[in-house]
Amino acid sequence: MSDVLKMGMVGGGRGAFIGQVHRTAACLDGKVRMVAGCLSSTADKAIASGKDWGLADSRNYQTWEAMLEGEKKLPASERIDFVSIVTPNHVHFPVAHAFASAGFNVVCDKPLVHTGEQARQLIEATKKMGVVFAVTYNYSGYPMVKQAREMIVNGELGEIRKVVVEYNQGWLANNLEASGQKQANWRTDPKRSGAGGAIGDIGSHCEQLVSYVTGLRLQSICADLTSFVPGRQLDDDANVLLRFCKAGASNCEGTGPDSMDAEPGARGILTVSQICIGHENDLRLRVHGTKGTLGWLQEEPNYLVLRQDGQPEKVYRRGNGYLGERARGNTRLPSGHPEAFFEAFATVYSNACAAMRARSEGKGNVGGIGMGGAGGGFDYPDVVDGARGVEFIERVVEASASSEKWVRFAGK
Amino acid sequence: MSDVLKMGMVGGGRGAFIGQVHRTAACLDGKVRMVAGCLSSTADKAIASGKDWGLADSRNYQTWEAMLEGEKKLPASERIDFVSIVTPNHVHFPVAHAFASAGFNVVCDKPLVHTGEQARQLIEATKKMGVVFAVTYNYSGYPMVKQAREMIVNGELGEIRKVVVEYNQGWLANNLEASGQKQANWRTDPKRSGAGGAIGDIGSHCEQLVSYVTGLRLQSICADLTSFVPGRQLDDDANVLLRFCKAGASNCEGTGPDSMDAEPGARGILTVSQICIGHENDLRLRVHGTKGTLGWLQEEPNYLVLRQDGQPEKVYRRGNGYLGERARGNTRLPSGHPEAFFEAFATVYSNACAAMRARSEGKGNVGGIGMGGAGGGFDYPDVVDGARGVEFIERVVEASASSEKWVRFAGK
Amino acid sequence: MSDVLKMGMVGGGRGAFIGQVHRTAACLDGKVRMVAGCLSSTADKAIASGKDWGLADSRNYQTWEAMLEGEKKLPASERIDFVSIVTPNHVHFPVAHAFASAGFNVVCDKPLVHTGEQARQLIEATKKMGVVFAVTYNYSGYPMVKQAREMIVNGELGEIRKVVVEYNQGWLANNLEASGQKQANWRTDPKRSGAGGAIGDIGSHCEQLVSYVTGLRLQSICADLTSFVPGRQLDDDANVLLRFCKAGASNCEGTGPDSMDAEPGARGILTVSQICIGHENDLRLRVHGTKGTLGWLQEEPNYLVLRQDGQPEKVYRRGNGYLGERARGNTRLPSGHPEAFFEAFATVYSNACAAMRARSEGKGNVGGIGMGGAGGGFDYPDVVDGARGVEFIERVVEASASSEKWVRFAGK
Amino acid sequence: MSDVLKMGMVGGGRGAFIGQVHRTAACLDGKVRMVAGCLSSTADKAIASGKDWGLADSRNYQTWEAMLEGEKKLPASERIDFVSIVTPNHVHFPVAHAFASAGFNVVCDKPLVHTGEQARQLIEATKKMGVVFAVTYNYSGYPMVKQAREMIVNGELGEIRKVVVEYNQGWLANNLEASGQKQANWRTDPKRSGAGGAIGDIGSHCEQLVSYVTGLRLQSICADLTSFVPGRQLDDDANVLLRFCKAGASNCEGTGPDSMDAEPGARGILTVSQICIGHENDLRLRVHGTKGTLGWLQEEPNYLVLRQDGQPEKVYRRGNGYLGERARGNTRLPSGHPEAFFEAFATVYSNACAAMRARSEGKGNVGGIGMGGAGGGFDYPDVVDGARGVEFIERVVEASASSEKWVRFAGK
Repeated sequence: MSDVLKMGMVGGGRGAFIGQVHRTAACLDGKVRMVAGCLSSTADKAIASGKDWGLADSRNYQTWEAMLEGEKKLPASERIDFVSIVTPNHVHFPVAHAFASAGFNVVCDKPLVHTGEQARQLIEATKKMGVVFAVTYNYSGYPMVKQAREMIVNGELGEIRKVVVEYNQGWLANNLEASGQKQANWRTDPKRSGAGGAIGDIGSHCEQLVSYVTGLRLQSICADLTSFVPGRQLDDDANVLLRFCKAGASNCEGTGPDSMDAEPGARGILTVSQICIGHENDLRLRVHGTKGTLGWLQEEPNYLVLRQDGQPEKVYRRGNGYLGERARGNTRLPSGHPEAFFEAFATVYSNACAAMRARSEGKGNVGGIGMGGAGGGFDYPDVVDGARGVEFIERVVEASASSEKWVRFAGK
Repeated sequence: MSDVLKMGMVGGGRGAFIGQVHRTAACLDGKVRMVAGCLSSTADKAIASGKDWGLADSRNYQTWEAMLEGEKKLPASERIDFVSIVTPNHVHFPVAHAFASAGFNVVCDKPLVHTGEQARQLIEATKKMGVVFAVTYNYSGYPMVKQAREMIVNGELGEIRKVVVEYNQGWLANNLEASGQKQANWRTDPKRSGAGGAIGDIGSHCEQLVSYVTGLRLQSICADLTSFVPGRQLDDDANVLLRFCKAGASNCEGTGPDSMDAEPGARGILTVSQICIGHENDLRLRVHGTKGTLGWLQEEPNYLVLRQDGQPEKVYRRGNGYLGERARGNTRLPSGHPEAFFEAFATVYSNACAAMRARSEGKGNVGGIGMGGAGGGFDYPDVVDGARGVEFIERVVEASASSEKWVRFAGK
Repeated sequence: MSDVLKMGMVGGGRGAFIGQVHRTAACLDGKVRMVAGCLSSTADKAIASGKDWGLADSRNYQTWEAMLEGEKKLPASERIDFVSIVTPNHVHFPVAHAFASAGFNVVCDKPLVHTGEQARQLIEATKKMGVVFAVTYNYSGYPMVKQAREMIVNGELGEIRKVVVEYNQGWLANNLEASGQKQANWRTDPKRSGAGGAIGDIGSHCEQLVSYVTGLRLQSICADLTSFVPGRQLDDDANVLLRFCKAGASNCEGTGPDSMDAEPGARGILTVSQICIGHENDLRLRVHGTKGTLGWLQEEPNYLVLRQDGQPEKVYRRGNGYLGERARGNTRLPSGHPEAFFEAFATVYSNACAAMRARSEGKGNVGGIGMGGAGGGFDYPDVVDGARGVEFIERVVEASASSEKWVRFAGK
Repeated sequence: MSDVLKMGMVGGGRGAFIGQVHRTAACLDGKVRMVAGCLSSTADKAIASGKDWGLADSRNYQTWEAMLEGEKKLPASERIDFVSIVTPNHVHFPVAHAFASAGFNVVCDKPLVHTGEQARQLIEATKKMGVVFAVTYNYSGYPMVKQAREMIVNGELGEIRKVVVEYNQGWLANNLEASGQKQANWRTDPKRSGAGGAIGDIGSHCEQLVSYVTGLRLQSICADLTSFVPGRQLDDDANVLLRFCKAGASNCEGTGPDSMDAEPGARGILTVSQICIGHENDLRLRVHGTKGTLGWLQEEPNYLVLRQDGQPEKVYRRGNGYLGERARGNTRLPSGHPEAFFEAFATVYSNACAAMRARSEGKGNVGGIGMGGAGGGFDYPDVVDGARGVEFIERVVEASASSEKWVRFAGK
């Protein structure tokens, strides 16, 4: 494996938003180069898009199946080191499964797939082939998110009691999909997006962020999904109550919804929406423990606020020497020179690439966070994290369908 | 009725926090004077406290019953114009009922009483005697909260879709009541505080703030109350999903929890806690409508943020000419000279006092917001608002007890 | 002296802004009552205004001279305990001098007087008669300003190197005085306002705030005053370079402008303006020392930010137990229940009143900050602070007149 | 010229900070590739550094002179399209002059050179050869800075009256250079840094930012430079009063320092420091005009605040459709997905590269902002902007040396 990794991409052709983000992020450090691709499901567009990006004709493929075959035939030293899948959700499964099963490392956008069964198959293929399989939960790439995780692991918050996670957007407050806008169009279509609308697109980021930062495991949920825009088929607003397993419990028994009187596990609120006008990409997290509170906002990502009892509020700022190893090791600029979205995204890639290099050097365990790879030093969201996100979407949809939970308010 | 109203106070003796706030607030504009009181349930302490505050011996009472009798005997021109009740919650009902039934105007702290039945009796006495009965939901006294209400009434937000209200505190993160701290002690004791802990003490403020600002009526709720601190008898954390009646519907039918597919009414999240370390009095409100979003924070009360589609975010600042009549009419200082907690509290008093003056001049309808008095110009929370708050607490406690609402998360 | 001090007021009649602020502030704690006044320089208006405020006819005076005579004749137990002077600037001197010389305590608005000579006479009268003479530099009444002072006194910032003080307003960006608006009218008239416009009205607050917080003494200044609005006679914008005496030096020798190479004293920037549209009352202070930086904003007065090398930024919040004695002793509400402008103003009164009580009990030194009384426990700005402010205005006006300071920029 | 431009770099080897920033920025969009370099003034280190970055041996040069010769010999299609100079300041002139004179396009870090005479020679060479010569005043690459410029050009602020520009850093509060830290070492050495310390390193950014955003021309200045850290040879703190030419005047006559009574041109304050502990890269700009105020902060670069008389404050956020053409055209991510330092830096490169492409296609005027090229569509800081910055440093140093400007404060 040479110094610069060779990336192939599926999806992300002309007009795509997230494909370009992936390319910029992957290449930010000058250590990845895109050498192959099938950039659209429409053959003509795929070819034209590949030309835009300087792909050699021989590796500018019309279908992802052709790309898989083409790359497999190349000598190992020329072949792509990994495939990056940036298509609408419904395409993730077949492409990811085929490439992983063929021994290629995979980077795949989120949410991973439509069903728990598909997720199970991807985990199986990943384990069988020993490949690196990263899921681009990009927000966990922010240095101050890593700092939050590290502080909690170190016990600086004590036992976690409450988590509040929000992801407020407003871009779907109107019937944008009717205009044919590409991103809105497929995200509001259950065939392509899956069973979740907002809860899938952005709720899954929330679930992963909470899991990554706190290490808590969900025990049970109660949910209210709504579709406000007339004619929309999927939820554009989701409000969810969360209960987490008691920390340290070998399982979640005894802390469940039936046991109000038992010592409680952590509680949480998750609220996501795409009809909050004027909110742009307002992902925010608050974690409350027995020793203190942490707060972080994606739109001002260089800060992390710690509040401890009887002490002034502390604002941790990216790039400073007082931060932990993870925050310092996953940053590119000195303090005050703000980093932002691209860098966090790039960090998911660079950490996954580190695992790929380790694999090529024969290291056994190259899993990421979900597979316990973090212990082995690989700090990227992996296929197990992706699978958990799929279950989360399924359970929220299920919980929302139950109507017995409501108590009527009589009013006066 | 003279220019300066005469106030009697029940509760608020030495060591009390909120009693002193009431006195400062009531007298802020120089239009109220405290002339009588029974400042403690302990006779000696009552007398000593009254002396501290310069009460004449003849009107420095040992019991509230003696105070009621004493004041009734005075000529109308000397008698108190209203009683202010600032005791722990369980004392509200007998005092308020007795004074209102005797024809005295009442200002009472929140939550109003322990049960819906008590609240019903207070409404009855208030209506029968035609008195002014204000409940000190002080946060609705802030000018920018009034501005929010006015903008929504004027349709600037369109139809309301979602409300997020939070009230985060950290002062009960530890077992403060065990130390004998007075405020903590009674607030965590169901005999004195009522069935709700955090949901009663601060959740009731949230309910009223939402009601006041949006005019929405609650349709149904789903709740999760938790008591995190070992040994605590009442909730110190509450997370509630809200569904509101469809705006404009004559009743709430057809928009209920059974009718997911019907055109939805507004949804909401209410989260309150007293274990969020480092959060002090962090009450915040966000309202999302079809035309825009409003946001307000109690700890920075002079601002109100409006976000509209396709426009820069707008920050409305207290004291400016571009604000509506209510915000301009309920403020005391020019812009940039910040107002805060005392002034908002004082405004509840001054608006209730305006109603008292109107009553003394023979005006018929002197009700406040809940009784529709706002239409008649009286912008104070009244006994009906207080009663609704009591029902809210009862319903949340009931909803939390149900455990069928939870869907189990299997995890991986 | 009874529990409640008796205040007489000169100025502050109908339509006045600052008079009402003084009344509310003085009476906020229920320990001061206004019993006499000459509320306007126009006799009819004075009487009408006094009636509005419930003054007894016998003490509702037509002229301040009559008030002085009338009060002197009353028995000591009935006589006013102090006079509060809230007139336009040019009236301060005669009233203050007459009352102080007659042995009355004085509270006077700022800037104190028009000339250094007048200030000298006031100091003389104050010392001779042993009266309390407070100047309402109200911003030094904020708890977090007191915290800043205390932290600097305690050495937490090390040696001060740089001070940046700003006071940005926009209310005079247009020719408001032409409209007859009362506040604008006299403030832009040198006969009533004095030699300084913005530099007098708000620049004097800056000078006092810096002096109070840092304890630094000004050594020399360099200034640029501008009057932007056509026809305006006084500056509406002032930019000033500051050099302070070397801390600890018994005098300022050897650290002057001639000695660039010597070890420098602190440097500073002062910028004030009344043409900064949209800035309301934007007073802000930053102090940089060898160990850290402090920052404070008047419009968000409950916070104080400390930045130390190699540590997270710390936000100190009013009302917390970790604050020093001065911040805790001069506050009225718990943390999170914001205090603001009125309370800070009230604190100047309450601290001056404490000195008045001490005087009535025979205590010798009842001076405030400028007279070293702070050491004796009296934390109010006094006549010496007021005099220093007058010199500041005079020197800035003088410095601005010099044009040799400019170096021409050729440009390209 | 191919789709991807070929960059050569001088400076920026192992351990350098800004060199890596230039590489990431230049390559961010995938449209520039580094193909040659002399990455250090030490030959061994140059070679080792070039290997790190994958330079071919044949184009990994030991000296910049060798690089110039080597590249000149290559066929036009292989030769570098531009040289990027990222050395300490004293090396800028010889390298830039040699490459520009040889017909190579140049991108050079700031401040441009040590003296006005050197700057003059670079302008001459640039004009003679018709090359593109960009100076990386990277802060003018931020979209919201461009928005500010566009709003002012469109008259939305009316006539500019006052500018406040600050650049606060704390990294040199101690004698860091004594530790051998590379960045501190050369920046505090007049032989390498030039006559200005903080005023050169960061003051020059301020000058350019003001010029770029407002279009104002400096008329005269008055300055106070200080070196606080014992033993330091250059200023680490600078406070400067600014006077600008009257807008629209064909020259600056009649608005000068001698003409206090004439209609004034704009005034300004510039304050920069490297001893402000805890301030990281705190560049901030405020512009006040007759119609409104604009405010921008580098550390939160995605926002621009507009304040207009009688209207709510408006917060413009990057990525929205309501922004002007320049802000929209120089951005890469949708709103809420924050952009930061790298992207702004990259935009200086991408706009300079656009000019280089235009030159290669025979377009005549490829100058940037200073040469009026902005009118021709090229929005990059050019050699004329760089020269003006050099004059600014020279004049501030000169102005600071004059001591007559100070008026002594007597104190009391």
